[in-house]
Amino acid sequence: MALFTSSPSQGASELPRTSSPILHTAVTIDDTFWGPRIQAVREQTLPIMYEQMKKAGYFDADQRGWHKGMQPIPYVFWESDITKWLEAASFSLATHPDPKLEEMVDAAIAFITSLQQPDGYLNLWFTEVEPERRLTNLRDLHELYCAGHLIEAAVAHFQSTGKRTLLDPVCRYADYIDSIFGREEGKRRGYDGHEEIELALIKLYHATGEERYLRLSHYFIEERGQQPHYFDAEAKARGEDPTNFWARSYEYNQSHQPIREQLKVVGHSVRDMYLLSAVADLARELSDPSLRETCERLWQDLVSTRLYVTGGIGSSKDNEGFTSDYDLPNLQAYAETCAAIGLVLWNHRLLQLDADGRYADLLERSLYNGVLSGISQDGTSFFYVNPLESKGTHHRRGWYNCACCPPNIARLFASLGQYIYGVNDTDLLVHLYIQGETSCTIAGQPLKVRQETRYPWDGDIRITLDPAEPTEFGLNLRIPGWCKAARISVNGEEVDLADLVVKGYAHIVRQWQAGDEVVLHLDMPVEQVYAHPAVKEDAGCVALQRGPLVYCIEGADNPVPLHELSIAANASFTSTFEPELFGGSVVLQGEASALSTADWDGTLYRTTPPEQTVQPLTAIPYYAWDNREPGEMRVWIRSGYVNR
Amino acid sequence: MALFTSSPSQGASELPRTSSPILHTAVTIDDTFWGPRIQAVREQTLPIMYEQMKKAGYFDADQRGWHKGMQPIPYVFWESDITKWLEAASFSLATHPDPKLEEMVDAAIAFITSLQQPDGYLNLWFTEVEPERRLTNLRDLHELYCAGHLIEAAVAHFQSTGKRTLLDPVCRYADYIDSIFGREEGKRRGYDGHEEIELALIKLYHATGEERYLRLSHYFIEERGQQPHYFDAEAKARGEDPTNFWARSYEYNQSHQPIREQLKVVGHSVRDMYLLSAVADLARELSDPSLRETCERLWQDLVSTRLYVTGGIGSSKDNEGFTSDYDLPNLQAYAETCAAIGLVLWNHRLLQLDADGRYADLLERSLYNGVLSGISQDGTSFFYVNPLESKGTHHRRGWYNCACCPPNIARLFASLGQYIYGVNDTDLLVHLYIQGETSCTIAGQPLKVRQETRYPWDGDIRITLDPAEPTEFGLNLRIPGWCKAARISVNGEEVDLADLVVKGYAHIVRQWQAGDEVVLHLDMPVEQVYAHPAVKEDAGCVALQRGPLVYCIEGADNPVPLHELSIAANASFTSTFEPELFGGSVVLQGEASALSTADWDGTLYRTTPPEQTVQPLTAIPYYAWDNREPGEMRVWIRSGYVNR
Repeated sequence: MALFTSSPSQGASELPRTSSPILHTAVTIDDTFWGPRIQAVREQTLPIMYEQMKKAGYFDADQRGWHKGMQPIPYVFWESDITKWLEAASFSLATHPDPKLEEMVDAAIAFITSLQQPDGYLNLWFTEVEPERRLTNLRDLHELYCAGHLIEAAVAHFQSTGKRTLLDPVCRYADYIDSIFGREEGKRRGYDGHEEIELALIKLYHATGEERYLRLSHYFIEERGQQPHYFDAEAKARGEDPTNFWARSYEYNQSHQPIREQLKVVGHSVRDMYLLSAVADLARELSDPSLRETCERLWQDLVSTRLYVTGGIGSSKDNEGFTSDYDLPNLQAYAETCAAIGLVLWNHRLLQLDADGRYADLLERSLYNGVLSGISQDGTSFFYVNPLESKGTHHRRGWYNCACCPPNIARLFASLGQYIYGVNDTDLLVHLYIQGETSCTIAGQPLKVRQETRYPWDGDIRITLDPAEPTEFGLNLRIPGWCKAARISVNGEEVDLADLVVKGYAHIVRQWQAGDEVVLHLDMPVEQVYAHPAVKEDAGCVALQRGPLVYCIEGADNPVPLHELSIAANASFTSTFEPELFGGSVVLQGEASALSTADWDGTLYRTTPPEQTVQPLTAIPYYAWDNREPGEMRVWIRSGYVNR
Repeated sequence: MALFTSSPSQGASELPRTSSPILHTAVTIDDTFWGPRIQAVREQTLPIMYEQMKKAGYFDADQRGWHKGMQPIPYVFWESDITKWLEAASFSLATHPDPKLEEMVDAAIAFITSLQQPDGYLNLWFTEVEPERRLTNLRDLHELYCAGHLIEAAVAHFQSTGKRTLLDPVCRYADYIDSIFGREEGKRRGYDGHEEIELALIKLYHATGEERYLRLSHYFIEERGQQPHYFDAEAKARGEDPTNFWARSYEYNQSHQPIREQLKVVGHSVRDMYLLSAVADLARELSDPSLRETCERLWQDLVSTRLYVTGGIGSSKDNEGFTSDYDLPNLQAYAETCAAIGLVLWNHRLLQLDADGRYADLLERSLYNGVLSGISQDGTSFFYVNPLESKGTHHRRGWYNCACCPPNIARLFASLGQYIYGVNDTDLLVHLYIQGETSCTIAGQPLKVRQETRYPWDGDIRITLDPAEPTEFGLNLRIPGWCKAARISVNGEEVDLADLVVKGYAHIVRQWQAGDEVVLHLDMPVEQVYAHPAVKEDAGCVALQRGPLVYCIEGADNPVPLHELSIAANASFTSTFEPELFGGSVVLQGEASALSTADWDGTLYRTTPPEQTVQPLTAIPYYAWDNREPGEMRVWIRSGYVNR
């Protein structure tokens, strides 16, 4: 059974069914899995990050005399750490008011807006450090990328607090940018080397209703990769030879071709995900089938050739991004946390564009594995790269000079509520199984929804619906791609799923009454997962998966060198919930064969095969690795499936 | 059956049996395997190398204005390319007189000796480029290393041609060095960062009978690693902080400890092999059991933890040397050609110290695999590193800026005759099976020996003995460690080997008559070889070996990605001699399982194992790889031995 497929889902011949997310402000999460994680972000990550930024002088650039080349490195885009933190903190304030945090937010906003120039320009680096280089190197210097994160922060702050203290200055800045860039006479035909402003402008359009921002986003997307190439012209204007681009190819920033012509996901993977998030948004906003097909084409490319089983993407450190088909090294995997987050962002938008469970499957895979591994159990340390194998030398760190990942996780978790549900006039969609409540309006009627589950530890989900009046609408429960057997009952009565599942969702239409109860059961056995044979590093290996969670083996549980272990093709595993481990976790236990070194004394090579012994094997969720003593880790375990 | 073992050979309780090599000047090689290779070195490698050196300005340093930092890099030890070439050319002149080559040799010697200083000092770099730095940085600048290769060249030239044109100036230089270094009052207690002069001085002692050179070598060996550390003092004298040593540890040049205390082969592997070659020589010259035990201890360490199956050594590019036990990566293997040559040199000396077949086994393994891979079929291009896996991006090159390997192979092949036989008062030892003739004196009688064989293509060897008078002596034929079944007949009559084999040699004592014929048959089936389970990269894999040859699979013969292939534990292979391939070569043919990609369209991960198809598999000798179109190569092939 394929975990991802590029072939259309069942029912895909239907027209795309669009929906909108129920915003996190309308969602309460009281989930035993996610609750403590969101709490850790709120109580640990956000205040610690603020202190880190303060300590690093983020809020007093002028006093500190920031300058190019100073140590430790102030990255040209350091302000985006502040604005991503602002966005995360704003999200958190919406669901958990906190005067102390609000004070920090207000102070950060006061600092940022104090640096706005009379013409509306608002960028910290190019005001404090290198004003003479304003808008001269969009290719490399993240100027509009920073604008994008500033805009996202402003929108989140406005939507969460109702305050316009950041939104208004940011609109002035967006207006300034709009006055500079575009295809109109007298404007520059530029765009940023690191995509981000494109998706942010669509948020700003929604927050303000100002269509100019939508058009500006659309312009940036359409202009990217057109000839004559803007980055060529810009480099020449700086007196540089454009062919001396340090990244060698414009594939690095996805400006090698106009987006509608691109056939492969390429280059820096965070950039590509942010680009494609905006493309998905625009496809929906503009009802543009060609942009939708572009998304679909690149999605198929990604899931069929360039995706780690953990939902991580970007194999190489060199370009922090994509390399070639099936090149998915484990020990050297880059799989940046931010790229997995970008994959969540893109697939969340694809789900709104077309409610196809494939997108939710991928969102979930990244969220529960490649993203979640990026933060420690206690919310205080972070992975930048997320390898699928370690010799025990990779460890989460409290901060990075390039600190993009920690605030990126924080803003995702603080707004996690918005990823759970989708809604439109006729349908409620449940994308993720996370315990809590939400309210929305459907078919003109207010509706309350309560979800109860211990997911991902088991596959039982109870959903209680409370419409204000009996109302006919479709309840759509996602049947994950990893699930081979599901059951649903409505008010205790089993329903036949056979004809109900369309594009990965069980679609139950009826007149719903207050107190109606739907119980979903998803079978969640331990699966051995095989990679396409072209993935060299995974040949002869299997990964273990249970429900949405990919597992790994760690030295802490398994005392022999991990490469000496192999799993039989018919091996069975028990799943046990251990309440004390990682704040509660299902571990897998079974048997492996271990190559024996007992009779090799002094011998390095011989013509008789190694003896094998039976060895207990314990696997833990991949996301939880490196939360104990340092040691080896492997996701892909040698297997006996070859030459059975 | 172990291919190498650190346990003592059968019969090892006996006293070591020393012997001397029969020099290549007394050996004629007319072997179908080695003949063309030695001819290629003579007719291609040597003249091409001379032209390369001429082109690079090696012979007119003064005219060219060599200076530090010029491009292309003139390495500080560039003269060692000339002297290794001189040594190789001299060896060749001994067996194949060639007036044109002799003219080149004379010209090179005239050039070198013209730069000798009045005090006897003779180094090209520190005369032409940086005279002010003479003998100020032995740690890094290869000054006595160059002296060593100069001495080896002088000895080879003298022994091959009888001329003293290089030997006499070199003796003056050796006398100068002896006047500077030593433990006597007023001398410096230094030694070189790159060992080489130590083994060269022993050769000079043999060539001249001057014991001072033996004592100087002994001093260098004993002084190395003593406290206070010479390289510390030397660095301080240069005004440098000794702890800032770029290689970080004195393990790099084996001066971290006195040699008698060393427990592991460490650091730069060529240096270690040259060091240990001198240690083995001294153990024999001085009948020093502690130096002999040092060799044995380090040999056991190497063969049980730090040796590639190809006889290559040195896993890492970082230090061009040893890393940690069982760290033997295949794709990233360094396995420098010169290091495998160094292993041949050391084991050749160990064989003289104690005729134990284990040393000859290792010598043979390196020679036929890790060394031979370093030179192309036609003798015109060279590998510096010899990986055991390639994506098709490794290729031999005609020359290197650091051109140590090409002349090193040339001098080994041009003197190959000396590695075949050993002799002492009572015994003739046949270490290698190479067709040709030799003469020696044994038990006071002249003896002619003829060896006929197609080795390594088959295991039949016919040896004809022609003593001038009937003479009693022991004929010792090596029974290689890889051979599980051997037969010997003397004058057509089979002899029972059971009690005859001592330490890897069939020991046949009798009164030999002119025309006596001994026929040896060595079984040579295809073997699957397994690595110690701790070798992570080889877990679940096998290598193929037949006789002394390790095989590999190449893309040129096998059209599927090589990692998709696996061999069954009971797979059988046919051996076929293909006369047109690589100048004649046995190829192995059998069947492999290939992971099928047929039903994976668009799928990257799934829960059903890949289908497998039967695929013919062709393996070629490892040494012959990269002689056809570029493509993948693997020595270690996935295997079905696990979870049978």
